[in-house]
Amino acid sequence: MANLPPLEPSKILSTNSSLQAKKIRFEINSIELPIGIKADFGIIRHPGASIAVPITSDGRIVVLRQYRFAISRRILEFPAGTLEEGEEPLASMKRELQEESGYEAFKWDPLGIMTPCPGYSDEVIHIFLARNLTKLNEKPAGDADEDIEVLLMTKDEFNQRISSGEEALDGKTITAWHRACQFLRV
Amino acid sequence: MANLPPLEPSKILSTNSSLQAKKIRFEINSIELPIGIKADFGIIRHPGASIAVPITSDGRIVVLRQYRFAISRRILEFPAGTLEEGEEPLASMKRELQEESGYEAFKWDPLGIMTPCPGYSDEVIHIFLARNLTKLNEKPAGDADEDIEVLLMTKDEFNQRISSGEEALDGKTITAWHRACQFLRV
Repeated sequence: MANLPPLEPSKILSTNSSLQAKKIRFEINSIELPIGIKADFGIIRHPGASIAVPITSDGRIVVLRQYRFAISRRILEFPAGTLEEGEEPLASMKRELQEESGYEAFKWDPLGIMTPCPGYSDEVIHIFLARNLTKLNEKPAGDADEDIEVLLMTKDEFNQRISSGEEALDGKTITAWHRACQFLRV
Repeated sequence: MANLPPLEPSKILSTNSSLQAKKIRFEINSIELPIGIKADFGIIRHPGASIAVPITSDGRIVVLRQYRFAISRRILEFPAGTLEEGEEPLASMKRELQEESGYEAFKWDPLGIMTPCPGYSDEVIHIFLARNLTKLNEKPAGDADEDIEVLLMTKDEFNQRISSGEEALDGKTITAWHRACQFLRV
């Protein structure tokens, strides 16, 4: 992330209330913005996450059909996961790829960072391209509350799903896909 | 949204705590997932939003450089906004486009919906393509806390910024851009 411009934090005047839910915390803070305005804003404090676009040696994409209670839908997502405390984004992603998809990757390229909800969450997601995939004999145990189906699609099949009107598009997944297509010039 | 599969809600057993911050509310709910697991999860309740990819008649893209306190950065975003109570996504977007960019659009195409944070937010963002733009003589007043610069870029300039490594990519913006490129076949 050496190329990113330096952070420009707002001044937190006080934290008025907060709620912790597992790895995320919601805070209502009194803030002074760089333009000088003072107001109260809600924010999710999030430890960060990783996402990978996994592509097999025969050019197919590993996509998950995952249930998400927050939107009451099953959506298409690339393997991704929230960072454990002190965990590096790439190490986390290597673990999550195995747990969620049952594949291991031996060629990794970083594709930058994205922010899924910059209006109310400090979450930063590290994007990777994962290639030279090997299917594991046994899929490692993931989180008990995960409800995931593993799919293989060609690039055309995946693009067709995105444009079909039959999917609620996952922001991190489409952003990672756009970056992967740029990187691979496809 | 007629083509989307029906919602598959989880059962909310109880709301244990909640915090309201302007238009968003954070709740910690005891939930029973479709796979039968019961657990507590945090969720942002959000009224929904709209985003538009505005393209001028000479093929330039209207992009905002907007300060976001939650990530302590200025990021590239398309005009977007949170729905007011009872507001339709397209009507909201027409208002926000004028307030944030100073342009009015006379040709609108819906490009589906995206979910920015399906792990912990119920926010749904309606994506539009906005064409036949006219620059307003005077930009209407927007929210007082907005810190926005309006930019015009060619498609190549915008793609170059996305791949430069110098930007924290905004998920809704890149998702909307990917859909616009699909729709326009560029």
